[in-house]
Amino acid sequence: MLNPQLPPKYRPPIELGKMADGILAGEISALAQGITLIESNLPAHRDLSDQLLQRCLPYTGKSFRIGISGVPGVGKSTFVESFGQYLLDKDKDARLAVLAVDPSSQEGKGSILGDKTRMERLGVHARAFIRPSPAGKTLGGVANHTRETILLCEAAGYNRIFVETVGVGQSETAVQGMTDCFLLLLLPGGGDELQGIKRGIMEMADLVVVNKADINPTLSNETRNAYANALHLFPAKENGWIPEAIQCAALTGMGINDVSEAVERYFRHQTSNGYLPHRRGEQGVKWLHEGIQEALLSQFYHTQGEKLSKLEAKVSNGEINIREALRELGV
Amino acid sequence: MLNPQLPPKYRPPIELGKMADGILAGEISALAQGITLIESNLPAHRDLSDQLLQRCLPYTGKSFRIGISGVPGVGKSTFVESFGQYLLDKDKDARLAVLAVDPSSQEGKGSILGDKTRMERLGVHARAFIRPSPAGKTLGGVANHTRETILLCEAAGYNRIFVETVGVGQSETAVQGMTDCFLLLLLPGGGDELQGIKRGIMEMADLVVVNKADINPTLSNETRNAYANALHLFPAKENGWIPEAIQCAALTGMGINDVSEAVERYFRHQTSNGYLPHRRGEQGVKWLHEGIQEALLSQFYHTQGEKLSKLEAKVSNGEINIREALRELGV
Repeated sequence: MLNPQLPPKYRPPIELGKMADGILAGEISALAQGITLIESNLPAHRDLSDQLLQRCLPYTGKSFRIGISGVPGVGKSTFVESFGQYLLDKDKDARLAVLAVDPSSQEGKGSILGDKTRMERLGVHARAFIRPSPAGKTLGGVANHTRETILLCEAAGYNRIFVETVGVGQSETAVQGMTDCFLLLLLPGGGDELQGIKRGIMEMADLVVVNKADINPTLSNETRNAYANALHLFPAKENGWIPEAIQCAALTGMGINDVSEAVERYFRHQTSNGYLPHRRGEQGVKWLHEGIQEALLSQFYHTQGEKLSKLEAKVSNGEINIREALRELGV
Repeated sequence: MLNPQLPPKYRPPIELGKMADGILAGEISALAQGITLIESNLPAHRDLSDQLLQRCLPYTGKSFRIGISGVPGVGKSTFVESFGQYLLDKDKDARLAVLAVDPSSQEGKGSILGDKTRMERLGVHARAFIRPSPAGKTLGGVANHTRETILLCEAAGYNRIFVETVGVGQSETAVQGMTDCFLLLLLPGGGDELQGIKRGIMEMADLVVVNKADINPTLSNETRNAYANALHLFPAKENGWIPEAIQCAALTGMGINDVSEAVERYFRHQTSNGYLPHRRGEQGVKWLHEGIQEALLSQFYHTQGEKLSKLEAKVSNGEINIREALRELGV
């Protein structure tokens, strides 16, 4: 496996054809190497990554991509383990990849999927593949790499993809932009417990799942009903789906079948109305535009960053108007 | 007054000093001319607009800026008329400017404030100033001009600003980005009637006002309570404010005092916790960044637009990956 700690000269040369063949044959070691390659920031690796992705592209898109979010403490790892195991048991052809978008993770530091011991069963399951969040400085970089990792996993035959993220607002938007179905985990009780969820996240949810329903079934029931009512009040989604509220207890497995049925119902709905390919096409175009914007802005900040900081302060204090600031920046 | 229909040579020369003095003295004709100047797209007017804005800047910021949104049929004009009249009656020092962000409006076509006869009382009130949405092709341009119009109105002594908009999603975001308080009008009944409200708008609301409460008081009451409960379930806002749900009947004036008290409560809350200047500073920096982005992207689209369209189609169909598209675009 590639080791990014070693200088390039000590690394074995990358045999791209062999790597791609391995991925397409479903070999886990080739897949892991491929992901490490696309996560690499070395300029020499960019060409190879591009070729690898292009080679795998025809074999992508044949999975259900499910985003899973929720604040720390909601039981995300247990839910992923329990729901993932359920899907693998239910269908012997199911192969599950569990990925993450966690901008806070750094190599050597803990990340939401970094500790595989928290997923004891999935971690050793022959049809499951777990890959922690790429280490990177910007959310954009982390998200781009996870999006590309989905493609490699699909090329390797994984037909269920979970992308886990933790409530920092922006990362949920990124995950929604690379998945087909966005699932938000909540705790029973509402109100105070929800303070950790950022505004706008609730509206992204296709399914709201109240976890830990076993601890206080009455409270969990009330919470589920309150969300079911609230979700009905809010405007309909572009795809025509009305978000559902479900309850479960991932630790005991209670209600996981309800979650699974709701997810199936969702995918049937999205497939029958033709929205799924439409959504994926739109997601691709959006990523393209974001890539362009990111590149243009990073070039701009590179040359004008210092001047911009000063002008930001002046605009913020009301010293100059925005037109004047733009003129001084020469745009 | 400037007439944009005439070619430049027929227009009287703009005496900027006189115009600025007139605006600062609260003269309506000077204010109207100033707004026409900043809305002008003529390159020769850009310098003058910049100077005018810079000259007025020290006298801006001393108003309450209130965004008002709701789908057609909710009774926006009647609400603006009724609430505006109430504020002017209540405080003899109050001066109200009513502006709009309506990207669909074009010169000569109807716009949400174009028909002043719908605001019979405010239209002739000595302390009220009504200005329809600027005519412009892009939402960005329309929004920029309305934001600058707020500044000129404040310099002319208007201390209450309403910015009206109609539910097209993006325009609400723009209005929220230039106001202090965002008020969403709804109809009694919920559900079906709400289909016109775009997702994400509900989460922006600082106050939800159920209008036309007189038609079916029981239903209106139920609707108000349902929203009050739903708004409590949703995550707290950055500014610490928990959105309130109120009901009124703008046509009869019923409940307008409740709306007014809620707005006052909101501003007391935002002033006492120091959030208001912070929010305005952040809004300014955000507009600056959007201005930069808009300029950079428009230059890019100008040169690469055709190539981009072709690549978008390929990305959307899954023919090429995004990295390759970005490389072909040279970014």
